[in-house]
Amino acid sequence: MDAVLRQSKAMCPFLKQASPATLRALSTSTRAPAAAQLEQQATSPCGGTFSRLQLLGQRCPVMGKALAIQSSRLGKAGMAASATVAGLRHFSALYKSGKAGIHTSRAHEARPVETPIFAPRDSAQFAPKAPAAARHAASPVHQQPHNGSSSAKFDYESFYQAELDKKHQDKSYRYFNNINRLAKEFPQAHGSSKEERVTVWCSNDYLGMGRNKQVLTAMHETLDEYGSGAGGTRNISGHNKHAVELEATLAKLHAKEAALVFSSCYVANDATLATLGSKLPDCVILSDSLNHASMIQGIRHSGTKKIVFKHNDLADLEAKLAALPIHVPKIIAFESVYSMCGSIGPIAEICDLADKYGALTFLDEVHAVGMYGPKGAGVAEHLDFAAHQAGKPAGTVMDRIDIITATLGKAYGCVGGYIAGSAKFVDMIRSLAPGFIFTTSLPPATMAGARAAIEYQMSYNGDRRLQQLHTRAVKESLDARDIPVIPNPSHIIPILVGNAELAKQASDMLLSDYQIYVQSINYPTVPVGQERLRITPTPGHTKQYRDQLVQAVDEIWTKLGIKRTSDWAAEGGFIGVGQESAVPDEPLWTNEQLGIDSRVLREIKAAKPANGFLMETLLEREAGEASAVSASA
Amino acid sequence: MDAVLRQSKAMCPFLKQASPATLRALSTSTRAPAAAQLEQQATSPCGGTFSRLQLLGQRCPVMGKALAIQSSRLGKAGMAASATVAGLRHFSALYKSGKAGIHTSRAHEARPVETPIFAPRDSAQFAPKAPAAARHAASPVHQQPHNGSSSAKFDYESFYQAELDKKHQDKSYRYFNNINRLAKEFPQAHGSSKEERVTVWCSNDYLGMGRNKQVLTAMHETLDEYGSGAGGTRNISGHNKHAVELEATLAKLHAKEAALVFSSCYVANDATLATLGSKLPDCVILSDSLNHASMIQGIRHSGTKKIVFKHNDLADLEAKLAALPIHVPKIIAFESVYSMCGSIGPIAEICDLADKYGALTFLDEVHAVGMYGPKGAGVAEHLDFAAHQAGKPAGTVMDRIDIITATLGKAYGCVGGYIAGSAKFVDMIRSLAPGFIFTTSLPPATMAGARAAIEYQMSYNGDRRLQQLHTRAVKESLDARDIPVIPNPSHIIPILVGNAELAKQASDMLLSDYQIYVQSINYPTVPVGQERLRITPTPGHTKQYRDQLVQAVDEIWTKLGIKRTSDWAAEGGFIGVGQESAVPDEPLWTNEQLGIDSRVLREIKAAKPANGFLMETLLEREAGEASAVSASA
Repeated sequence: MDAVLRQSKAMCPFLKQASPATLRALSTSTRAPAAAQLEQQATSPCGGTFSRLQLLGQRCPVMGKALAIQSSRLGKAGMAASATVAGLRHFSALYKSGKAGIHTSRAHEARPVETPIFAPRDSAQFAPKAPAAARHAASPVHQQPHNGSSSAKFDYESFYQAELDKKHQDKSYRYFNNINRLAKEFPQAHGSSKEERVTVWCSNDYLGMGRNKQVLTAMHETLDEYGSGAGGTRNISGHNKHAVELEATLAKLHAKEAALVFSSCYVANDATLATLGSKLPDCVILSDSLNHASMIQGIRHSGTKKIVFKHNDLADLEAKLAALPIHVPKIIAFESVYSMCGSIGPIAEICDLADKYGALTFLDEVHAVGMYGPKGAGVAEHLDFAAHQAGKPAGTVMDRIDIITATLGKAYGCVGGYIAGSAKFVDMIRSLAPGFIFTTSLPPATMAGARAAIEYQMSYNGDRRLQQLHTRAVKESLDARDIPVIPNPSHIIPILVGNAELAKQASDMLLSDYQIYVQSINYPTVPVGQERLRITPTPGHTKQYRDQLVQAVDEIWTKLGIKRTSDWAAEGGFIGVGQESAVPDEPLWTNEQLGIDSRVLREIKAAKPANGFLMETLLEREAGEASAVSASA
Repeated sequence: MDAVLRQSKAMCPFLKQASPATLRALSTSTRAPAAAQLEQQATSPCGGTFSRLQLLGQRCPVMGKALAIQSSRLGKAGMAASATVAGLRHFSALYKSGKAGIHTSRAHEARPVETPIFAPRDSAQFAPKAPAAARHAASPVHQQPHNGSSSAKFDYESFYQAELDKKHQDKSYRYFNNINRLAKEFPQAHGSSKEERVTVWCSNDYLGMGRNKQVLTAMHETLDEYGSGAGGTRNISGHNKHAVELEATLAKLHAKEAALVFSSCYVANDATLATLGSKLPDCVILSDSLNHASMIQGIRHSGTKKIVFKHNDLADLEAKLAALPIHVPKIIAFESVYSMCGSIGPIAEICDLADKYGALTFLDEVHAVGMYGPKGAGVAEHLDFAAHQAGKPAGTVMDRIDIITATLGKAYGCVGGYIAGSAKFVDMIRSLAPGFIFTTSLPPATMAGARAAIEYQMSYNGDRRLQQLHTRAVKESLDARDIPVIPNPSHIIPILVGNAELAKQASDMLLSDYQIYVQSINYPTVPVGQERLRITPTPGHTKQYRDQLVQAVDEIWTKLGIKRTSDWAAEGGFIGVGQESAVPDEPLWTNEQLGIDSRVLREIKAAKPANGFLMETLLEREAGEASAVSASA
C-alpha cells in the first residue's frame, strides 16, 4: 500500500498539496442536501451516500474517467449505477487513510463540467453532471435508444431528444421571443408581425445608442467607403484604421496603455483568462461566485487552479489569498455590476487585497461602461468621479485595476468586446490568444460605430444621468405598489417572483395583455426560488411608459397571486426583499453627481407631491423647465 | 511494483487502452529531429534526450504537473532543467516494463497546450510548451525577474515581456499591416495614409461581396430601421426576424432542417464541438491533422478523447475508426477546403466511413461557402452539382453530412458563423452551448447583409466562376515563370518560399516596392521550412492586376534568390512542388461546370496564343464577346 501511496503522490498534484486532515475530512464529511440530491439524481438512481471525496473523484479527469469506463462496462450488464457507487466506495476507502489524494483544481477546471458547488451565475450548460458513462447508464431515456446492444451504432438523434427532454422537464428550455427593436420608435419594437407594437423593458441597449444619430452616420459612411466586412483576421488583411482608432479610443477611455478588440466580450473574457491562466506558471484564479459564464469558461479553459470566493465577500477573498504563497501568480476575476441582481463589486477594496497579496485584478465592466463615471468608463471610473472629471487618472481605482474587459454591445449599442491594460499585457494576449488570432475582425462599420458611441458618451453624460433618474422613478413607483424589487445600487431592477412557472406566466402576460416585453429569468440563470423579471429602464422610457409598466406589473401580481414585498417581509424577508434590517444600498450615482439640487428636493418633499413620488415630480419639473427654455428660445 | 501498476491502471484511462507493445515502443522510440529540437529548446537547455513517453508525460495534466512542481522546487536551487530531465527519466524508467502507462487523450485534450506532433494548421498559441514551472525555470528571462526569492510578489510585466521576447526570438511575432479595403475601388485599399493605394491579394472576401450593392443596401436599410445593435442575447431581447430569416436561409442553402448563427465560425466550431464532445457519453472525436485552431480548441474544451488522423488519409482514418467499439459515439471533424494549402477533404469517402462505423460527420466549409456548388453551398454541394442544380438534394453528399459549419465573414463578405444540421441537433446546441447562449446577438444589419449575400450567391454563380478562372490564370502565369505554386484543386494559390525571413522580406517588398499586399504565412501557421505567400484572387483581379502581381513576384524571386520550381525539382521536389511524379490535382470546378466550351479551348490551343496562356486568352475572348454584346445592345 505504501508503494501505491508514493506513486499516487508522485502523480497527483492535489495529493501533494492537500493535508492529511483535509483528506480525512473529505472522506468523512457529508454534502449539502441540495447538492447531494442533484448528484444522486444524476448518478445514483439506486440511492447510496457519497462522501465529498467520492464526488471529487467523479470530477477528476483521470479517476472519473476510470470510474466511468468501469461503470459503463458493468452497466451493459445492467449494473451501471450500483457499480458506480461501488467504484466510488472503493476509491474513497483507498483515501480514508488520509495519506493519498485525488486530482482536483487544475485537472477539474480543464473539463467543461461545473457543479452547483461553484454556484455559477448563469449556467445552462453547467447542470450537475456525472461522468459520461454513469450519466448515460442512469438515464432511462438514453438507455432505450442506444444502450440496447453493444454492437449497435449510437443513436445520435435520440440522444439529442433526450437532452432536450431534460431541458423541458426542468423548465429551463428557452423559447425565444421575436422582438424587432425599432430605431425610430425607441423603446418600441414590433413582434413577428410588423404591425404589432411592444415596449421593450429588458434590452441591454441601456442608453439607446443603437439609434443614436452619430453612431448611425458613422456606420453608414463606413459601410459605403469600406464595405460590409473586414475580409480577414487581424493578421491577414483584417487590420485597419478602424481597429487602430477604436483601440486607441478604448485605451484613452480607461486611461490604460493599450486595448484590444474581440468578436465579443464573451470571447474577450474566455480568451484572456484562458491565455493568462495557462501561461502564468502555477497561476491561481480567484473568481467571484456570481461571475459570468464567459469568465467561468475562460478559467476552465486555462486548465489552471480556480478558487471561488463568496460573492462580494472581502473576508472570504482575503482568507483565500492569504492561504496562497506570495510569489505565486494570482488573478482576482470579478465584475463591477452583476447583471442579474444589480449588485456592485467592492473594486477599491479588491485592489487593496491585490496589492497586499501580489495579485492581478481582472475587472469585467460589461454592464457598466457608458453607464457610470464622468466619461462612461464604468464603475471603477465612477469611484473617483472628480479626479476623472478633472482628467487626473493617476492613482485612482481605475488606474489601479490591471485588466478591464467590457463590451461594445450593451450601452454602446453595437457588438464586440475588448480588454484594456498595460501595453505588454495587451501585446501578449494579442500574440497568444487563439480566440483573437484565428477569427475574422469585426467589420469596419461596426468598429467605427462603436467608436462614435464611446466618444459621444465620453463627452456627454445626459443619457446615463437620465437613465439613472428613470431607474429611480421606476423603483420608487414599484416600491409604492408593494412590488418586490431586489435592492441594489445600480441601474438594474430585478423584481422577485420566486417561482419559475409564475415568472414565465408573468412575462407572457405582460407581452400578450400589455404589449410589454420583459424576459423572465429562471434557473439556471438564477437559483431555483429566486426567479425574477429583470427590468432595464433607458433614457427613452418616459413617464407614459413607466406608468404603463408599473400598472401592468401591479395587475399581474394580483391576477397571478405573486408575493408582494409585505408577503416576503411577513416571512422574514428574502435576498434583501422585505428585510428592513438590511442596510439599504445607496445608489452609486449620488444626488450631487446627478445634478439634483438638494434645495429643490427639499422643496418637493415639503410640498408632498400629489402623486407621492419625488422622482416623478423632479422629472416633471425638469421637463417643464426644458420646455420653458425651448419655448423662450 | 505490481501494486503501483495496478493502481496506475485503475487511475489512468490511457493505460487501460494502450497495449504493452505500444508502451514499450513509446519508451524506446526517438523523436523526429525537428520536434526534438523544439522540445529541447523549451525544456532542456542542458541537453539530454527524451523518449516519446517522457514527452507524453510532460503533457499529462497529472504527471506533467507533478514534474513541473518538482522541477520548480529544485529550480529554485538552480537545478531546474536537469531536475526536469531527471524527473522524466525516472518517470520513463517506471514505464519501460511496458505494463504501466500515462494519461493522454481526455486529460491531454483538456489542456490548452498543443505540440507540433499534431501539426495544427494555424497555431500561434500552440508553440511547444513545457509544463509551466519547468518553462519558467528554464527561461533565464523569467528567472531573473520573479524567481529570485519565494517571498517576492510575482512580476507580471516581466513575464509578459519574456513571452513577447520568445515570439520575437522564434520570428513568430506578428506585425499587423494597416490595410483599408476600399469598397468603390475593389480590390484596392489604402494604407495608414488615405493617399497610398495598395492592391490586396490576400483577403478572404473572395467574391468581393463586401462591396456588393444588394448587401450594402440591405445593411443601410436595416441600420436605419432597426439600429446598430441587437441589444441583447438571443434569449433576452436579441432574437428577431433577422435571425429567424438568416437561419432559415442557411438551412435552405445546405438543405438541412435547421441552422444556428454564432458571433463567428471560430465560436461556432469551438462551442459546437465542446458541447457535443462533453455531452455525448464517452465520445471520441477524430480530427484531421490540419484542422483549424477553432476545431482544435473545441475538441480540447470538450474534455473528451481526441484521435488525430493524417491529413486527408482515409486508410489512417479507417484504421482508427475500426479500433473503436461500434456503439461508442464518434465525430469525424474535418474541412472541405484547407485554407493554407488549398487541399480538399474526401467528403464522400468520409461519409462512407462514418456510415460504416457509426460516426457523425462534422464538416467545416468556411473557405468553401459561396465558392463551390451551383448555389454556393460549398464543396459538399459541388460534388453533386447536377442534383443540386435540379433542386434534388436527397441522397447527395451534402445530405449525408450531419453537421456543416461555415462563416458569413469570407465569401459572404460580412461577419459571423453558423452550424446547420438536424432540427434536434441544432436545438440541443442552441439550448446547451454557453458560447451561443451567453453572448450578444449579431446586429440586425449584419444578419440582413449576410442573408442578402447568401441569396445573391444562391441565384448567381458568375462571381465564383470568374474567381475560378482568375485563379487558373494566375496559376498558369506563375507556372510559366517557374514560380513554385503548391499544387491543389481549389481557389487558394500558396507560393512556396521555404524560409521565414525570406517570406517576410518578399511580403514587405511586395508592399513597399510594388504596392501589392500579400501577407507572408510563417511558422506556426505552417511548419518551419514550408513558409509561403498565400494568394487569393477574386473576380475583381482583372488582367492588369494579374500581370502586375506575376511580374512583381518574378522580380522579387530573382532579387531575393528564392528557389523556383526547377530548383525544388532538382532537389527531388517538396510538398508537391517540382514533383513530376505526383498525380496533378484536377481543379474541383471542371471546364464543363465553368462553362468552358471544349471546342473553343481546342481552338485556342491550336492557335498557340501569343502570350502562351490559355486562360488569359480565354478570358480575353470572353471580355471581347461581352463588350461586343454590350456595344450591340
